[in-house]
Amino acid sequence: MSDVTTDDRARALDAAGCIGKPEMVAALQAELPHDIVLHDDESLRPFECDGLSAYRTLPMIAVLPATIEQVQTVMRICYEYDTPVVARGAGTGLSGGALPLERGVLLSLAKFNRILDVDTDNLRATVQPGVRNLAISQEVDHLGLYYAPDPSSQIACSIGGNVAENSGGVHCLKYGLTTHNIIKLEIVTVDGERLTIGSDALDSPGYDLLALMTGSEGLLGVIVEIVVKLLPKPELAQVAMVAFDDVRAAGDAVANIIKAGIVPAGLEMLDSPAIIATEEFVHAGYPTEAAAILLCEIDGTEAEVAEDIERVRQVVNDSGASDVRISKNDGERALFWAGRKAAFPAMGRISPDYYCMDGTIPRKALADVLIGIGELSKKYGQRVANVFHAGDGNLHPLILYDANNPGELERTEEFGGAICELCLKHGGTITGEHGVGVEKIDQMCVQFPKAELLQFHAVKAAFDDKTLLNPGKAVPTLHRCAEFGAMHVHHGEMPFPELERL
Amino acid sequence: MSDVTTDDRARALDAAGCIGKPEMVAALQAELPHDIVLHDDESLRPFECDGLSAYRTLPMIAVLPATIEQVQTVMRICYEYDTPVVARGAGTGLSGGALPLERGVLLSLAKFNRILDVDTDNLRATVQPGVRNLAISQEVDHLGLYYAPDPSSQIACSIGGNVAENSGGVHCLKYGLTTHNIIKLEIVTVDGERLTIGSDALDSPGYDLLALMTGSEGLLGVIVEIVVKLLPKPELAQVAMVAFDDVRAAGDAVANIIKAGIVPAGLEMLDSPAIIATEEFVHAGYPTEAAAILLCEIDGTEAEVAEDIERVRQVVNDSGASDVRISKNDGERALFWAGRKAAFPAMGRISPDYYCMDGTIPRKALADVLIGIGELSKKYGQRVANVFHAGDGNLHPLILYDANNPGELERTEEFGGAICELCLKHGGTITGEHGVGVEKIDQMCVQFPKAELLQFHAVKAAFDDKTLLNPGKAVPTLHRCAEFGAMHVHHGEMPFPELERL
Repeated sequence: MSDVTTDDRARALDAAGCIGKPEMVAALQAELPHDIVLHDDESLRPFECDGLSAYRTLPMIAVLPATIEQVQTVMRICYEYDTPVVARGAGTGLSGGALPLERGVLLSLAKFNRILDVDTDNLRATVQPGVRNLAISQEVDHLGLYYAPDPSSQIACSIGGNVAENSGGVHCLKYGLTTHNIIKLEIVTVDGERLTIGSDALDSPGYDLLALMTGSEGLLGVIVEIVVKLLPKPELAQVAMVAFDDVRAAGDAVANIIKAGIVPAGLEMLDSPAIIATEEFVHAGYPTEAAAILLCEIDGTEAEVAEDIERVRQVVNDSGASDVRISKNDGERALFWAGRKAAFPAMGRISPDYYCMDGTIPRKALADVLIGIGELSKKYGQRVANVFHAGDGNLHPLILYDANNPGELERTEEFGGAICELCLKHGGTITGEHGVGVEKIDQMCVQFPKAELLQFHAVKAAFDDKTLLNPGKAVPTLHRCAEFGAMHVHHGEMPFPELERL
Repeated sequence: MSDVTTDDRARALDAAGCIGKPEMVAALQAELPHDIVLHDDESLRPFECDGLSAYRTLPMIAVLPATIEQVQTVMRICYEYDTPVVARGAGTGLSGGALPLERGVLLSLAKFNRILDVDTDNLRATVQPGVRNLAISQEVDHLGLYYAPDPSSQIACSIGGNVAENSGGVHCLKYGLTTHNIIKLEIVTVDGERLTIGSDALDSPGYDLLALMTGSEGLLGVIVEIVVKLLPKPELAQVAMVAFDDVRAAGDAVANIIKAGIVPAGLEMLDSPAIIATEEFVHAGYPTEAAAILLCEIDGTEAEVAEDIERVRQVVNDSGASDVRISKNDGERALFWAGRKAAFPAMGRISPDYYCMDGTIPRKALADVLIGIGELSKKYGQRVANVFHAGDGNLHPLILYDANNPGELERTEEFGGAICELCLKHGGTITGEHGVGVEKIDQMCVQFPKAELLQFHAVKAAFDDKTLLNPGKAVPTLHRCAEFGAMHVHHGEMPFPELERL
């Protein structure tokens, strides 16, 4: 791609009968300040990919509006000229949800970076979509409040992107996903209308469009304002680091903690390769001989934490833990977490590249799926380290590879697909918190039969009659699934009978 | 209506060119056991109303399928003949959501009354929609588990109806509404297709149709199977009964409890008329001189409860409580709740009739709305008692009236509409947990501007292209709103500018 300029592409599109880049630039500049309409290759370069950087495309045009009215103008013009639009927050997404289209407009919400209101009586804040996730908690810290969902990219990721992807984080076991922590949205529709979704009260009549919009990956509308819930900061938090000699015992311990009625603020698991890599990197004190460790955080008042930590100790001992260590102070707590938080960069020290997967499974399947991933690792001849939100059954297998070895990226992607299908076989899903984007779109064909996909398309059409909002992401066409199914048959077996129906 | 038989109506409809009752009965009986297709007036009588008994209509036909395949057959035939369908669970709904249509089929899910599976590893149960809410908790009681949402009708109401209305209950402040306590649905679509919505894992990719279906009041599909979450029963629960001399102090105390980071299992409020009426009825020990009381339940382990109860005591004392009493044992706890639970029947002792409203407001508006309701009470010359889920801002004003006085029911309904509009003025909504049904359909015109209503209709069309599923409920037509708006103008003023846009 690097040797083809956007102008070359624009001329090719002109020849094909689509509206040309010059006309589209002119149409946008006629109604918007010229300096917010970017169109030369150099200006467009920063938008060519998001966190899934293996995929890159220069957009035809990028627009950086600063007001809701400008967003409405962009959408109205694009609708008129049948030009697709990809909205982008901070661009930290891991599934390519903000990957531009070479014939499309990239709509950056970067200038929507203000916290508009903090309402301490009702514990909520009104924020613009470009506000960074962590900035909300920082803004209300002096009030003893915070915003709960904490994806690991929270320093950089934007709240608008969090809503579009329904982001989670370490604490979503207790405090819920993004969908449980917002109460109202302002959106701009594909044709430039403004809609209010949800309300200032806890429940809203009519269809639950608030949940529908959350996690819809930019396919239903452009989010321009968000009312988030705030929570009082817990008095205390303490972490139990629990080692196991056996992965199955660790998996059972997770289920047993939840069954005991304990609601940890976080319940994370690392397997042996992840433990070794992170321990060498940050020296968090992880037992490198363990088959798996659990990090179980309890928060609340001092008495609550003391009591629940004791209960956790008892449950994990009964589940066969080989060692239990409780953080003695905030410094040690931070150290225990430092390993978990550094797990991804730690992989960079033991492998030139790694591919971060994301799937969810019912909790009781944890051990079986881990063992299954180990078998796939042998089959594909590639190492895997597992780091995951165990309490939610949300896995993050990290496949280690070297992109410089010919064919290794392709084999890694195939391995990733096999992990997705393993999750599905155990009643799971192909993504937990990273979204489908372009990355998992073929696996959607495996998860969903035709009737469900048709229903998704019908819902999409109810918001976007011309299919201009982030096309090619999140929900595959039936045609794509038929092709994917045919390819799988070609490889010798039909992995899931659903595909035969497509 | 009582002197018009369904056969008379059927003949009138025949004359109007619609499919006649005999043809529809024949079409259904051709593919279904005859004894599940009811069509004479006597058999239809039990279905003529739900819990909103002021509205009554005999359906043309009632069908009582026992299998999902039979539901599919009913839907397919009704779709073919353009016959509308109203699904019904236990018929305990309070907004007329299951009110039949005289030209429609009433689809009773009463025979779907089995608990199909209890999965203790993943803490969930698979149930049929006709299972009573409380029956789920009873079934898993010996496992130390329960199903959290507990609407006050839980002895009788069905879980399918709970999903359709997104029911809440006393404990939804801590444990969420129905939408937070289910993870998967099987539905039959308007044309008889079967769809699986959600998954066995905690998150599912694609649009969140699970939340969209929940609370959709039977307008998007027929629910035929539900996977609910189960929770471990808390070790202990204790209630603080707190008295206030002043309604505003009570409202502030609610906000202060939440701001302190306490998450009560329940946080209920009764105002003076409600206290007096219930105390005379059940002798729960309520202080009859108080302006308001709060019932604040804390659950958890013994230490957690002890600590949080002390924190509640401190917060309410700081907020100006005149008296605080803590339940000493389960007997006293039950007694404190007995008053709250008997509040509705208690009204029957002091008034021939009462009308139970349902609205939600942001918590900080509690005192202002209560005072506003008091002013409306004077204006309309009718007494009101207030009983509500204070923690959620979910009000249940009970308007007392005598249906035997000519015009009093009509005045009561107008008063109820004014309360809805008062909630909206304070950023609230027109319904909390009872749904819109037929009862609040005009108030939907006040809550939602045209753009939102159009979006609702587009979503509806994505599931029900012929508008056959529960038509006339939940979401008003634009025509209806225009008429409602015109009427309001006619009365002298346009209460909300939204209506001018319709």
